[in-house]
Amino acid sequence: MKTYVPGKPPKPKPTPLPPIKYGMILFRSFEPLDVFGPLEALHMLSKIRHLQLFLISETMEVVTTQPVVAAMNPMNSTMYPTLPPTHTLSTVPDDLDVLMIPGGLGTRSPLINATIDYIAATYPKVKYLITVCTGSALAARAGILDGKRATTNKASWDANVIYGPKVKWVPRARWVVDGNVWTSSGISAGIDATLAFIEEMYGKENATYVANLMEYERHGDPNRDPFSDVFNVAGAK
Amino acid sequence: MKTYVPGKPPKPKPTPLPPIKYGMILFRSFEPLDVFGPLEALHMLSKIRHLQLFLISETMEVVTTQPVVAAMNPMNSTMYPTLPPTHTLSTVPDDLDVLMIPGGLGTRSPLINATIDYIAATYPKVKYLITVCTGSALAARAGILDGKRATTNKASWDANVIYGPKVKWVPRARWVVDGNVWTSSGISAGIDATLAFIEEMYGKENATYVANLMEYERHGDPNRDPFSDVFNVAGAK
Repeated sequence: MKTYVPGKPPKPKPTPLPPIKYGMILFRSFEPLDVFGPLEALHMLSKIRHLQLFLISETMEVVTTQPVVAAMNPMNSTMYPTLPPTHTLSTVPDDLDVLMIPGGLGTRSPLINATIDYIAATYPKVKYLITVCTGSALAARAGILDGKRATTNKASWDANVIYGPKVKWVPRARWVVDGNVWTSSGISAGIDATLAFIEEMYGKENATYVANLMEYERHGDPNRDPFSDVFNVAGAK
Repeated sequence: MKTYVPGKPPKPKPTPLPPIKYGMILFRSFEPLDVFGPLEALHMLSKIRHLQLFLISETMEVVTTQPVVAAMNPMNSTMYPTLPPTHTLSTVPDDLDVLMIPGGLGTRSPLINATIDYIAATYPKVKYLITVCTGSALAARAGILDGKRATTNKASWDANVIYGPKVKWVPRARWVVDGNVWTSSGISAGIDATLAFIEEMYGKENATYVANLMEYERHGDPNRDPFSDVFNVAGAK
């Protein structure tokens, strides 16, 4: 039992500051909503909290969502929005609080090794990692999910989990938290994971504020996952 | 009753071709998910249907989501992704099938008159108009919603409906269809309106295909709208 010493109040345990600096990895053929679902939630939060965004790519070239390989665009469509990065792998500050990795067909590219090296080198320096969709396959390729529980896109489950033979893949999950690593299921699940992250970091009131302004009905249970059934994910039953 | 003439089968009524060319209006301080929610759904559909995207702005400058006025960024945040247009108001082809208008604080800008003129001039030429969130306020400013049923963002309802005194505003709706005009409620409602549009134009199977790949649980009832209650929209009870 602590003794009360007059004039010397007990020192409160310092609470860690909520994250400020968010880095989002970009690469050719990223999935649009994997980036813009989470960024919408953070964009809304940034009106009541000071937040900084770093869009990180190998070069300063505008990054397109168009696949490299024509076979991945069988209808010859042009439905491919682009996004300019703000920093390269070498100019981005090395004191990010949160590193975010989206998914998309580009995660399977053989041309993405510099980005994988950046992820491997940066993870030990950040406070949190968030992956969306097949972004967890990139994190797995960087070796940073080894021994951790994680999830990924359910439509392409088998093609993703092979990148992480030492990962404890969770086949039925909207998102999974293991230590400082947050991994979400496919595409729109990134919105729910980000709102849960906001709730954890900045409080439930702020998460509700953001979700309401987005007019988004949250999927609030990380273990409910209808898409593991839709896509018959192995081990989900 | 029709008579069967051997060798001369009844001519089937020609069905209109589903839309191919989608134009999305961009302006400073657009809301990220208003653009990228619908574009994600169309991006996914474009893998099985030939679709074309035109990102339309006043100039070819990259369009930022940052507000013009510093007072609208009170926390001095930098959570502002940008998007490069593909065409200007004068270079975009005049045979678009669908014109899409996102919302955002920029819809209230006094500097957006050329865009409003473009919307007014272009609506008679397109097959369909889709607005997301406060995008319906821009359509109202262009005069093209007069006499029509329409909805808009629920958090800023009063500030939007004043732009359309002759519009039949629907205070409780996830989205509203009146003739060839589809208007959605705030931000994420644009995803549901676009999926409903895809269902109407390309069939239920394709809409389900897209929603499943997005791992998105559709809000399928246009009349269910919890956010008209959350924000106490006048006339919604």
